[in-house]
Amino acid sequence: MDFSVVFIGTAGSVPTARRGLPANLIRHEGIRLLVDCGEGTQRQLVKSTGLADLDAVFITHFHADHWLGLPGLLKTFDLRDRERPLTVHGPEGIQRILDFCVDSAGATRYEVVANVITPGNVVKTGNLNVAAFEASHRGRAVGYAMFEDDRPGRIDLEKVAAHGIQPGPDLGLIQSGETVNGVSPADVMGPARQGRKIVLTGDTTPCDSLLVASHDADLLVHEATFLHEDAERASERGHSTALEAAECARDAEVKLLAMTHLSGRYFGPEHEEEARSVFPNSHVPRDFDFVEIPFRESGEPTLSRPERRGQKATQTPSQQDAEQGATL
Amino acid sequence: MDFSVVFIGTAGSVPTARRGLPANLIRHEGIRLLVDCGEGTQRQLVKSTGLADLDAVFITHFHADHWLGLPGLLKTFDLRDRERPLTVHGPEGIQRILDFCVDSAGATRYEVVANVITPGNVVKTGNLNVAAFEASHRGRAVGYAMFEDDRPGRIDLEKVAAHGIQPGPDLGLIQSGETVNGVSPADVMGPARQGRKIVLTGDTTPCDSLLVASHDADLLVHEATFLHEDAERASERGHSTALEAAECARDAEVKLLAMTHLSGRYFGPEHEEEARSVFPNSHVPRDFDFVEIPFRESGEPTLSRPERRGQKATQTPSQQDAEQGATL
Repeated sequence: MDFSVVFIGTAGSVPTARRGLPANLIRHEGIRLLVDCGEGTQRQLVKSTGLADLDAVFITHFHADHWLGLPGLLKTFDLRDRERPLTVHGPEGIQRILDFCVDSAGATRYEVVANVITPGNVVKTGNLNVAAFEASHRGRAVGYAMFEDDRPGRIDLEKVAAHGIQPGPDLGLIQSGETVNGVSPADVMGPARQGRKIVLTGDTTPCDSLLVASHDADLLVHEATFLHEDAERASERGHSTALEAAECARDAEVKLLAMTHLSGRYFGPEHEEEARSVFPNSHVPRDFDFVEIPFRESGEPTLSRPERRGQKATQTPSQQDAEQGATL
Repeated sequence: MDFSVVFIGTAGSVPTARRGLPANLIRHEGIRLLVDCGEGTQRQLVKSTGLADLDAVFITHFHADHWLGLPGLLKTFDLRDRERPLTVHGPEGIQRILDFCVDSAGATRYEVVANVITPGNVVKTGNLNVAAFEASHRGRAVGYAMFEDDRPGRIDLEKVAAHGIQPGPDLGLIQSGETVNGVSPADVMGPARQGRKIVLTGDTTPCDSLLVASHDADLLVHEATFLHEDAERASERGHSTALEAAECARDAEVKLLAMTHLSGRYFGPEHEEEARSVFPNSHVPRDFDFVEIPFRESGEPTLSRPERRGQKATQTPSQQDAEQGATL
């Protein structure tokens, strides 16, 4: 029941030596979704998770740094003889982006389908619901909330026995919501277990739709192009500061904040320091870091680093830093 | 009087973890030229030489792996407030590529000029002549020969003295080709010194125009997508094998052969082994390796690796491999 986000590219606008252009890989129960696809994404995938066949792509908006990796990626799938169709979701205008892909890199032999997703739309891929919400950027832009359906509550075996129910078909019916011989689900089962949820903002200034969509998320991937000292500039350009990202995380009561889309002027620690002043569990992932989202009853989401040569994955980047330091 | 080629991306068609898509940086006496600009080139530049302001770009043909890095690169120059115009040379159709750049990434505030360069055309950038020659690929494609003008011969000071010429204006006139008091340049100067020359094939099968253009080059950067075992496939697709690249190098009497545009199935040593059977000075550079081209009287061109952390540049990759092995 895996659910994780891999940060494939964490730079904003211009790549740096350490950070590639925007892309996030969402893995959920065998399904692979890509959110945004900046220039170089196919190679970033090759270098991290491997270039898995994707189940769908979601684009947040049409600034070039968020989709110019798409023509090459679609072409590479074709060179690898992909056969099944691929749907690319995005705001109104997504068809034009796919037309660009064909015009620049040629048509693919598999079908590429454009799907316009407007704020409030929900599409389901595998067992994951993806809802678009309105972002506040220059021009049309959305963010995506990805969430599971709630799971039924746990069976209380003592209560089952007390009500004289035998394991078997009757219990199955009760589990699926029916009342059998006067015994209702609530009599033998705990409360429904909340599905997991992650939110990716794309590019945005703070806005109500984002705050609402982020409520109670396990993970908020929030752009933080600037620091508070550049708050005015951030606002003018439709971007956020680390402080604003943290305020959203705090107000939406999320569990973990991951800040991405950093201006090339910043390295990460400045953002973490600023954000943690209002939301302690704030982080700036590096490219290829990932967050695993456990079921709510099983633990907290944690930012981890991939295994490097001769090194195991560790729970926290700072732990790994310490280990690296020790071996230098 | 520097003259060097940095291999910015050495993969063909699809990037691998180690090799980026096609791009070569040519440095000549302070001038910086880019030949081809595959997806991810701007970041490859950032990671190697730094993202220098380019003086011109040359595209060999319009398959997507050779130019999809251009929109992002041009946009990044704009974000960095570039002001001077940039000319992008290429075969007929280059204007359409630049239109794509504008449509996808927006217009730049500096001027981007498309220049159609047809086989036989020569343009001069700084002190370097760039001639296009016809390549044999699928569709319109060119390669580029880049060469210096010949330099005047060396002054023979003994002959100068024997002819009674004083250092000063008279000698200057003789050096510039005039005859003064019956003393001609040939009386006091050695033969003209041949300019340096490099050739980049772009994508091509073997062809006469390439052989002619490559004659006596200091460096031939030849695509070698396949090995001889795939010779038929190479020919069908308009590509070359390592053996064919080496035969060209041998027949054109070049000094050093660098093979690029490798299919992702290959790692390099197979190509070197095959090519060296007919042309010993054959190499497969890694990304960011470079070749410096000394004046002919000063030495031979050599493939080198960039300095890595805590390591100095070495003359040969195999030497560096040995050093790395020794410190593991």
